[in-house]
Amino acid sequence: VNVEEDVLAQDRVHAEQLRERLDAIGARMVNLIGSPGCGKTELLTALIPMLRGKRPCIVVEGDLATDNDARRIREAGAPAHQIRTGTACHLTAHQIEHAIEKLPLEERALVLVENVGNLVCPSMFYLGESLRLVCLSVTEGNDKPRKYPVSYRDADLVLITKHDLAEYVDFDLEEVEDSLQAIQPGIQSLVTSARTGEGLEELVERLRAM
Amino acid sequence: VNVEEDVLAQDRVHAEQLRERLDAIGARMVNLIGSPGCGKTELLTALIPMLRGKRPCIVVEGDLATDNDARRIREAGAPAHQIRTGTACHLTAHQIEHAIEKLPLEERALVLVENVGNLVCPSMFYLGESLRLVCLSVTEGNDKPRKYPVSYRDADLVLITKHDLAEYVDFDLEEVEDSLQAIQPGIQSLVTSARTGEGLEELVERLRAM
Repeated sequence: VNVEEDVLAQDRVHAEQLRERLDAIGARMVNLIGSPGCGKTELLTALIPMLRGKRPCIVVEGDLATDNDARRIREAGAPAHQIRTGTACHLTAHQIEHAIEKLPLEERALVLVENVGNLVCPSMFYLGESLRLVCLSVTEGNDKPRKYPVSYRDADLVLITKHDLAEYVDFDLEEVEDSLQAIQPGIQSLVTSARTGEGLEELVERLRAM
Repeated sequence: VNVEEDVLAQDRVHAEQLRERLDAIGARMVNLIGSPGCGKTELLTALIPMLRGKRPCIVVEGDLATDNDARRIREAGAPAHQIRTGTACHLTAHQIEHAIEKLPLEERALVLVENVGNLVCPSMFYLGESLRLVCLSVTEGNDKPRKYPVSYRDADLVLITKHDLAEYVDFDLEEVEDSLQAIQPGIQSLVTSARTGEGLEELVERLRAM
């Protein structure tokens, strides 16, 4: 359908312009993607205090409804803007442009975008990010990479989240890693837990240096 | 966009025709919706042996890739057809029509459809189901109904899944129930665990009697 292609092409232009604008001041966007309830907000609230003094952070939150997540982020110490998508299943670069206007964009800032909780659709939309983080919580099952390959194929880094719950479910890290490598050979992954702090220092270092 | 409206209207016709066709032989479709990894397949594999002798079951599985789920369902004892959607985020009535042609559709059959793991998009597409089950696993967080109201608004029955894991996470049944009632007053919900069997007899009775 041409209509759809036009919309996609137009949003691609927005994304590229946004990235240029961020690059010009040494700022970087991170696009955080994952299923509903995979722990994206929890991860951000753990990372924000750890990034203090390293890089300024601003956060764009995407949800169908409520501004719960933006409130949680502000409590964690970062300026946040909530996008309520209504029924839309992903964020667009155009929405991010408008959201950033409402936030203090400093030099070398990290623009942390938490996409709508959805393992399928957000993966099809480039927002202008320099780093795409795709989550997989240990409670979701070892088969998720193979069943949702499109999401993991374009990930720059896969975050295994909620690792503190691994002992209560049939999580198999080796199986997950093998599946990820089959989808994108050389793909990087990091085991994390927002509760115990596992993996977060490594992630903060990656975010600092990007 | 008119193109989109036409596609939606066309699929609605497929859904209504399918429902008429099923109704004529006393068969019923169940549309099972929920996030990736919320336990939909696990629930079906627990239900299928319990439904034996009560109603014939056939299963249509939707995933972006692999036929893992259809294999698991066949091992549990029901004929299953796998739809691989590629990048599409939901199933359509037209796809279900074709899938049913490949399965033995008996009188009074239950057509159990496991939609693509996605809490957003599948909710917008009526497939011809008599019962829409929307899952919420306890590991996803208490805030999911309020953040994804469109999905729960049209649910006939909400299944709280993985209740066996409730003690390891900050699950609050009262908060979840309050949120559900705020979205759809009078909404019905059922606490289940495919591991322990909690709630499954009640669900089987509901499926038998529909």
